[in-house]
Amino acid sequence: MGGDYAPRNVVEGVLSCIRDPRCDFRVLLAGDDAEIRRHLPSPIPDGIEILSTVETVGMHDSVAVAMKQKRGSSMYVALEKQRDGEVQGFVSAGNTGAVMALSTLILGRLPGVERPTIGTFLPSQKGPVLLIDAGANVDSKPSHLAQFGIMGSVFTELMMQRPRPKVGLLNVGEEKSKGNDVSIDAWPLLDRADINFAGNVEGRDILKGTVDVVVCDGFTGNIILKFAESFPGLLKHKFLEFADRGPLHKIWTGLMGKTLKGMIRDWDYQEHGGVPLLGVNGISIIGHGSSTPKAIMNMIFRAKEMLDRRVNETIREAMASATTS
Amino acid sequence: MGGDYAPRNVVEGVLSCIRDPRCDFRVLLAGDDAEIRRHLPSPIPDGIEILSTVETVGMHDSVAVAMKQKRGSSMYVALEKQRDGEVQGFVSAGNTGAVMALSTLILGRLPGVERPTIGTFLPSQKGPVLLIDAGANVDSKPSHLAQFGIMGSVFTELMMQRPRPKVGLLNVGEEKSKGNDVSIDAWPLLDRADINFAGNVEGRDILKGTVDVVVCDGFTGNIILKFAESFPGLLKHKFLEFADRGPLHKIWTGLMGKTLKGMIRDWDYQEHGGVPLLGVNGISIIGHGSSTPKAIMNMIFRAKEMLDRRVNETIREAMASATTS
Repeated sequence: MGGDYAPRNVVEGVLSCIRDPRCDFRVLLAGDDAEIRRHLPSPIPDGIEILSTVETVGMHDSVAVAMKQKRGSSMYVALEKQRDGEVQGFVSAGNTGAVMALSTLILGRLPGVERPTIGTFLPSQKGPVLLIDAGANVDSKPSHLAQFGIMGSVFTELMMQRPRPKVGLLNVGEEKSKGNDVSIDAWPLLDRADINFAGNVEGRDILKGTVDVVVCDGFTGNIILKFAESFPGLLKHKFLEFADRGPLHKIWTGLMGKTLKGMIRDWDYQEHGGVPLLGVNGISIIGHGSSTPKAIMNMIFRAKEMLDRRVNETIREAMASATTS
Repeated sequence: MGGDYAPRNVVEGVLSCIRDPRCDFRVLLAGDDAEIRRHLPSPIPDGIEILSTVETVGMHDSVAVAMKQKRGSSMYVALEKQRDGEVQGFVSAGNTGAVMALSTLILGRLPGVERPTIGTFLPSQKGPVLLIDAGANVDSKPSHLAQFGIMGSVFTELMMQRPRPKVGLLNVGEEKSKGNDVSIDAWPLLDRADINFAGNVEGRDILKGTVDVVVCDGFTGNIILKFAESFPGLLKHKFLEFADRGPLHKIWTGLMGKTLKGMIRDWDYQEHGGVPLLGVNGISIIGHGSSTPKAIMNMIFRAKEMLDRRVNETIREAMASATTS
């Protein structure tokens, strides 16, 4: 029921999903029964069930409201179903803060994880790079950063099939003595962890693809992510400015624009389909509020993939042998 | 004597400078006399003098070495000349850390300024936006951020001729309750300051040009800056990848590349010519180690402009009426 185009986009995404030949699972749609049915064919196709709920977490509801006053919300009830083992994954385009808080509250954390984290892929010269934490935590401790590194390494290894991915700590210089207090103290913890730690990386290394996983606090990660997402907008603006110079400029930029769009498709989050909340005892995928049906479909497939590739079991094992705090 | 192409690029930049019709000042070149003369015509043109020094701060020298063991360096001696009133501005493409430390040590801080700061312009949809602090301070306190806001506002108002520029605090959300501890505490200080404070801005607002001045701690600022600088590299990479698909693709991208280069010229730091260290009792401009002669020339003109537009006097007045700490 969350997100800017709910439940329409969610239902359409689920329909694409169960019609996809890759689909080997069933989908439970939690939300207002009548609203959901409006977007479903009748009878309801095989593989889709409705879990009728009566409340909705609004996009501007506070985390406190979502946690305490809306225990009958689609989000709350669906996560309880996962906690109780009735479903194996959860996907939402709703209120991000509420998804994170409720997932942590209801599913619980994996042993050894102090703070669940969001990892998101950015494009680079060498393929997608995981930025972790991308905004789940605003004030991070060194031990949190070390755990982000371990979880990010597992996630990238299993989901991108890159054995022993290189993990870098985002910082202002290469030397381990560089940085703010948190990053200086995180360095030895990451170095000690059983990951392929490549030391500090700088802002310029992200898009270069120097490492596969870039570890940072969620404050920096969120700012970097939103900054990166705004690049295509600036480029488009420059294009339009150039096109305004005359009719030939206009034709020229029109032709160029098409090619360029194809080239920067990597920036299109709809293709990737949501980001996982790592470190909770379950699967929780968070999508943009404006997720398209395609993005919803991709989020569901990503949840299933995380299940199939045993991401949480592997994080559990990695955390058991780690001493990050 | 610092920078990757010293003293050649520096001397050539100075020559362009004094030959420029805008030049109404003289330049003192501090460094190895013989080395400098090798790049100067003979006799030395009017408007150029040499201040012969015997030591050089290397690009990898620590700040401690620059401060304690190299008091005869070109950097040290030139800054002393400014402290003593013999010159009115200082420009260097040398070791950035050393320039910042020595400028602060030798010139001193303006009253009320706890930490000198570096502000740098990034392109946006509405023209250049000042990012401040861009890396001078890795751990910033709320009072530092407030002072960055005041100094950035003065600098932008005077140098970009934008009356009462809009100042935003870089954060992870718009509400004043959002963010890490430092930004939450900086908000009321910025709100109280005599600047046009627009509240929190997010990563995406920088390139949109939502505000004229973006305030952040130097850790985040440095990472954002270096990340931004690497964007053209990714674009170029995507171009080459596309061109590799065939001869027609190659011709097409060749044609596009030229246009695009013109469009993203804003990213070219050579055009801007260095960044000022704001908050010191004098003028200190820091350039890239790889500064071209043109960049050096622009740095010198920028120093002169800061002097003419009374940036430091205005910061002094703004700080006197502020209660940021």
